[in-house]
Amino acid sequence: MIIDRLIDKIVEYNNPTVVGLDPRIEYIPTHILEENYEKYGKNLKGVSNAFLDFNKVIIDNIYDIVPSVKPQIAMYEKYGIDGLIAFEETVKYAKSKGLYVISDIKRGDIGSTAKDYADAHIGFAEIEGKKFETFNSDFVTLNPYLGYDSVEPFLDVMSEYNKGAFILVKTSNKGSKDLQDLIVDGEKLYMRVGKMVESWGANFRGKYGYSSVGAVVGGTHRDEMVEVRKNCPNLFFLIPGYGAQGGKAEDIRACFDKDGLGGIVNSSRGIIAAFKLEKYQSFGEKNFGDASRQAAIDMKNDLLG
Amino acid sequence: MIIDRLIDKIVEYNNPTVVGLDPRIEYIPTHILEENYEKYGKNLKGVSNAFLDFNKVIIDNIYDIVPSVKPQIAMYEKYGIDGLIAFEETVKYAKSKGLYVISDIKRGDIGSTAKDYADAHIGFAEIEGKKFETFNSDFVTLNPYLGYDSVEPFLDVMSEYNKGAFILVKTSNKGSKDLQDLIVDGEKLYMRVGKMVESWGANFRGKYGYSSVGAVVGGTHRDEMVEVRKNCPNLFFLIPGYGAQGGKAEDIRACFDKDGLGGIVNSSRGIIAAFKLEKYQSFGEKNFGDASRQAAIDMKNDLLG
Repeated sequence: MIIDRLIDKIVEYNNPTVVGLDPRIEYIPTHILEENYEKYGKNLKGVSNAFLDFNKVIIDNIYDIVPSVKPQIAMYEKYGIDGLIAFEETVKYAKSKGLYVISDIKRGDIGSTAKDYADAHIGFAEIEGKKFETFNSDFVTLNPYLGYDSVEPFLDVMSEYNKGAFILVKTSNKGSKDLQDLIVDGEKLYMRVGKMVESWGANFRGKYGYSSVGAVVGGTHRDEMVEVRKNCPNLFFLIPGYGAQGGKAEDIRACFDKDGLGGIVNSSRGIIAAFKLEKYQSFGEKNFGDASRQAAIDMKNDLLG
Repeated sequence: MIIDRLIDKIVEYNNPTVVGLDPRIEYIPTHILEENYEKYGKNLKGVSNAFLDFNKVIIDNIYDIVPSVKPQIAMYEKYGIDGLIAFEETVKYAKSKGLYVISDIKRGDIGSTAKDYADAHIGFAEIEGKKFETFNSDFVTLNPYLGYDSVEPFLDVMSEYNKGAFILVKTSNKGSKDLQDLIVDGEKLYMRVGKMVESWGANFRGKYGYSSVGAVVGGTHRDEMVEVRKNCPNLFFLIPGYGAQGGKAEDIRACFDKDGLGGIVNSSRGIIAAFKLEKYQSFGEKNFGDASRQAAIDMKNDLLG
C-alpha cells in the first residue's frame, strides 16, 4: 500500500512535509533565468526550462530530508506544451531521487473521462497492447463534485499500480466556505464529503490504519481539521495552507494522532523561494538551494514542535 | 459579449449543437491510424497525430452547419505531451474555421492557481512584457467546489479578452447525485450552485439576456434542467448527455425559452464516430466525415423537433 510507504518515509525522516514545486518567474534566481533565456529565448521554452533547472536544484537540496514533493500542474500548464514538458521532467527527476510525487491536478470528470486522467497521471496509455508512461506520479489530487463514479476509475488504476489519491474535502482558501460549509442534514458539506471519501477508500487501508485514498484539508482551518480527524480516523490528510497562507504548526499538530502521524503538510513558496525571505537572504541568490534546505529544516522543527 | 456571438451563430445556423471532439483509438478509421503509425510509430505520437487528422476531417465536415466544438482535454492528456500538442492544434484549427471552441477542462483551484489555468486556456502567459498564447480557446468548463474565489480569476481574464465559461451545476452522470443532489436549506445543492453561478455572471449578460458565465446541466435529467431554467433565467446551458448517454431532444427542449434558445447541446461519439453506427454504416469507413455531417444534420433536426 503506497500510503504505508509514504508514512514509512515520514517516520524515517521524522518529517511530515511535502514541498510544493510551484515555480513562478519571480521566484527564479536571475542567473537561472538568464541562462535559459540565452539558450532558448525569452519565451515559453526559456521559462519552462528555467523552471526545470530551478526544480532540480530544490530537489537536490531536500530529497534526503523531505519525503515528498507536490508539483501544481497549473503553474506549468500556463506555459503550454513547454511548461508541461517541464512538469513531466520534474515528476521524473523527483521520482529518480526517491521522492514520492503528489501531482496536484484536482481533476474530476464523468467515469469514462476520469479513466483517461487516471491513465495519464497514475497509469499508462495502452496502444496496440503496449503500455506508455506519460505524467506518471505516485498520488494525485481529485475534486469530488461529480461523485463516486468520477473517482472509481482512479481507484481501479490505484489498485492495479499501487498508487494513491487525495480528494478535496475542505480547501485552504476563503471561498471554500461557499459550497463546502453549506449545511447538509445538520452537518457541513465538507464533513459529509470527508465521510464519503473515507468510505471510498475502505479497501485501501494499510498498516498504520490510514488509507491510500486521503483527503485535502486546509491547514488554515484548525477546528475543521480536528473535526474531520475525529469523524474520519482513517483519512490521511494532505494539508495545504501552512506558512504564507496562514496555517500554524500547533493548529496542524492538533489533527495528528498520538504517534504524531495523520497528514503531510505542504509548503510551496516558503521553501522554494526561501532565498527571497529576509530570514534566509544571507544565503545569497546563487545559493538559493541551501536557503531552501534550511527553510525545510526549520519547517520540520516547527511542525514537530 | 462572447455569449451573444455564440447565440448569434446558433440562430444563424438554426442549430444549438456543439460537437464533442473526444477522440479514442477505437473511433479512428483504420486508414488514418495506419498512416500515422507508419509515419510516427505505434506510440503516443502516432496516436496523437491520428487524433489531429481525424479531428480536422470532422471539423471540415461540420463547421458550416454547427456553431461550436468541445474538445475534452482528458482524451488528449492521456497521451501526454504528444496528446496535448494534438489538443492545442485542434483548438487552433477549429478556431481558424470560425467555430467557437469550448475547452472541456473542468479545472478548479485556489485563486492564484486558478489564474494560471485561466492564462493557459482563455488568456496569455506574460514573459518579460510579451504575451504568449498557448491553449487559447473561447470558453472553458469549470468546477465550483472551491467557491467564488476560485472562479474570480477566470472572470477577470474573461473581461479582458471577451471569453466565457460554463460552470458545473448538475452533471450528466449517475454519481452526480452523491454531492449535487444533497439538500441544503430545503433545496438541492446543484440548485444552490446554479443560483450562485447566475449571480457570479451578473456582469456578463448580453443582448439575449444570457450571461457569458453559463452552466453545465446534464441532458439526462429533465426535471432538474427545467427547475434550473425556472430559477436561473439568465444561465445559458451547456448540455452534455444527449444521445449515447440517454438524454432526449424533447426533454432538452423543455429547458429552452420561447425563442428556442437557452442552451447548446453536446454530442460526442454520436457524431464523431457516426460511421460506426448501423444507421450510417453505408457511408463506409473512408467517408467517416460525411457520416459525421449527416449525423450532425440529423441531430439538429431532432433537437428542433
